[in-house]
Amino acid sequence: MREVAIVGVGGMRFGKYADRSIRALGEEACINAIRDAGMKPRDIQLAYAGNLAQWEWGQGLLIGHSVLRELGLTKIPISRVENGCATGSCAFREAWYKVATGACDTALAFGVEQMTVTGSEKILNVFTGRQHAERDGDMGNSAPGLFALMARRHMAEFGTTREQIAMVAVKNRRYGALNPEAQLTDPVTLEEVLNARMICDPLTLPQCCPRGDGAAAVVLSAAGIARRFNSAPVSVAASVQVSGSYSDAGSYTFFDTDVRAAEAAYRMAGLGPGDIDLAEVHDCFSVAELVHYEDLGFCRKGEGGRFVEEGQSGIGGKTPVNTSGGLLSKGHVIGATGISQIVELVRQLRGQAGKRQVEGARVALQHNGGGFIHTDTASCFIHILKN
Amino acid sequence: MREVAIVGVGGMRFGKYADRSIRALGEEACINAIRDAGMKPRDIQLAYAGNLAQWEWGQGLLIGHSVLRELGLTKIPISRVENGCATGSCAFREAWYKVATGACDTALAFGVEQMTVTGSEKILNVFTGRQHAERDGDMGNSAPGLFALMARRHMAEFGTTREQIAMVAVKNRRYGALNPEAQLTDPVTLEEVLNARMICDPLTLPQCCPRGDGAAAVVLSAAGIARRFNSAPVSVAASVQVSGSYSDAGSYTFFDTDVRAAEAAYRMAGLGPGDIDLAEVHDCFSVAELVHYEDLGFCRKGEGGRFVEEGQSGIGGKTPVNTSGGLLSKGHVIGATGISQIVELVRQLRGQAGKRQVEGARVALQHNGGGFIHTDTASCFIHILKN
Repeated sequence: MREVAIVGVGGMRFGKYADRSIRALGEEACINAIRDAGMKPRDIQLAYAGNLAQWEWGQGLLIGHSVLRELGLTKIPISRVENGCATGSCAFREAWYKVATGACDTALAFGVEQMTVTGSEKILNVFTGRQHAERDGDMGNSAPGLFALMARRHMAEFGTTREQIAMVAVKNRRYGALNPEAQLTDPVTLEEVLNARMICDPLTLPQCCPRGDGAAAVVLSAAGIARRFNSAPVSVAASVQVSGSYSDAGSYTFFDTDVRAAEAAYRMAGLGPGDIDLAEVHDCFSVAELVHYEDLGFCRKGEGGRFVEEGQSGIGGKTPVNTSGGLLSKGHVIGATGISQIVELVRQLRGQAGKRQVEGARVALQHNGGGFIHTDTASCFIHILKN
Repeated sequence: MREVAIVGVGGMRFGKYADRSIRALGEEACINAIRDAGMKPRDIQLAYAGNLAQWEWGQGLLIGHSVLRELGLTKIPISRVENGCATGSCAFREAWYKVATGACDTALAFGVEQMTVTGSEKILNVFTGRQHAERDGDMGNSAPGLFALMARRHMAEFGTTREQIAMVAVKNRRYGALNPEAQLTDPVTLEEVLNARMICDPLTLPQCCPRGDGAAAVVLSAAGIARRFNSAPVSVAASVQVSGSYSDAGSYTFFDTDVRAAEAAYRMAGLGPGDIDLAEVHDCFSVAELVHYEDLGFCRKGEGGRFVEEGQSGIGGKTPVNTSGGLLSKGHVIGATGISQIVELVRQLRGQAGKRQVEGARVALQHNGGGFIHTDTASCFIHILKN
């Protein structure tokens, strides 16, 4: 396989856009990415769209085709993918693979979701899966429930404190305040996080990511031609996809999918956790980020609490994590989330991250997980980027 | 790229299965395909699931993971794809590409849809796209409307008769009666078709495919190892995906996506229309099949009506089409449709098609189209299979 580079990135501020069509959201991010690459839409040879669930608003099928038609891009192969909460990363990986194997020289990967236009009940239907209610839906085994159990178990096994878990939210909201594309831009204090509305003990509201509307896009090209488009291409050093189940871990203090994906990604890149200058990881809940530190090898098992408390996951620390503000600040805009993480890392590797810049960043890791509790299914994607 | 073979196929009778879960439907087809390949589930290294819209019944995300977990297959890469009505073919093509490029030696592609468990109104929401109502939803520009316009224009330009168009339904229902997996198994006479309830003039009810529930699956392997699994592997000689729009044709009497995909597929296989011994094409409406004859080169432009009238698209004719009974008999079970077409062709190439067998069939063509009228977007997949 040949080397692939990211030559363009396009984001937008995640938020509530009930007044815009899902096509308009996708179009904004795609245009931004194509312009950033110094390309015209006609330079794109293939595209993947990530979208989880555009149904309830009647946004229809073929969302990738619909968005790209707005750009005049109608005759290239376009497909939509879904992989739970890791949907955006799945779109990126498929586009990367097609360039790496020579199916095309350039490709666009984007993700788009419009979640706030419909009632919360409809959103919950997706995540609780009415058809699976017979199994455990009635028992409250929802996403906050799963992650609260994980927090409790981590506290019991490793002495992690609820303050340490809450510090993840404080850190991420601090960086979110520096990111013009974040949805929540007010920093929060530790006291505010701890005293906020309890969602599922010990997780309070600021420790649970909001949902939102928005899109993100990246343009890839064969590395050999990348400088035609961009003077600062970023190389994809590893792309890994794994599936699994929550119960494979046999424990509620780590993700088996994380561990397997990280091992494969480090092997593919010929790097180790110590080489990672910064990372974007899937902080759907505060405790998730803390567990990901350990699963990805940024610290040892059980030391995630101390890692955040000591500032090792902050800018200036050993491995800055979620300088974008993470899902906790940006919101989890499902189809767009994975791509949005990559957008942040490319900006960091280019030195374009402004006040949240990690100085001298050369190697970055992106981690995006997904799962459906009611069928005990999970997925994980990891990408390692280098400049 | 290396040669890829189909080593296992699994179908099931399409119909109404409100009493079963979508997981159970998918599982049945996947198990059938894996057994047909002489494999165990653990022999499968990668999977793609095709599904358009499992939302309203709360069937949840990660449908591929959920189905395969029932088989104990949890740790292989699994993704879901959607490409409108060509969703199943998109899953097949992605799996084919991964084997062809060496990402894996074996792969499973399956499609599943459960459409009858929800009200018709919800189904219509998908196809009319409430968000696009401002454009043309209120003008009745639905799928039957589009295809009725196509029929009218074909009649006006080429003298095609409504009897000829109706003969497509008569032929396909005749074959559907010979296919134990078809949903509609009663043959219909020309008189019955012409006198049936008018849906959109000149298309009567039997000329519009029903929807349904069901699944279909195929197992692929590198050709070099195919005989380990199956003594009669079928080779994939061409796989083509194109996108486009209805308006690209500049005419309502052909599909631009068909024509471009067919040209590319014949080139890739080194074959022409005259080499095709039989085909499964996307007969969502009777007139669509007639137009596909022309677009795929089975007859000349404007001669589709005569082609079916003379029996050239029937068994014993020049190019037998839709010996499975087509969508008009099986129903359009969206995610499953494209895979189901491939299942029929593999059975034909193996000589296992029973009373609907095309004697001596060596080369077969599969055609599956999709589109979303309200955004004027279209897609088309063509696969050519050989034994």
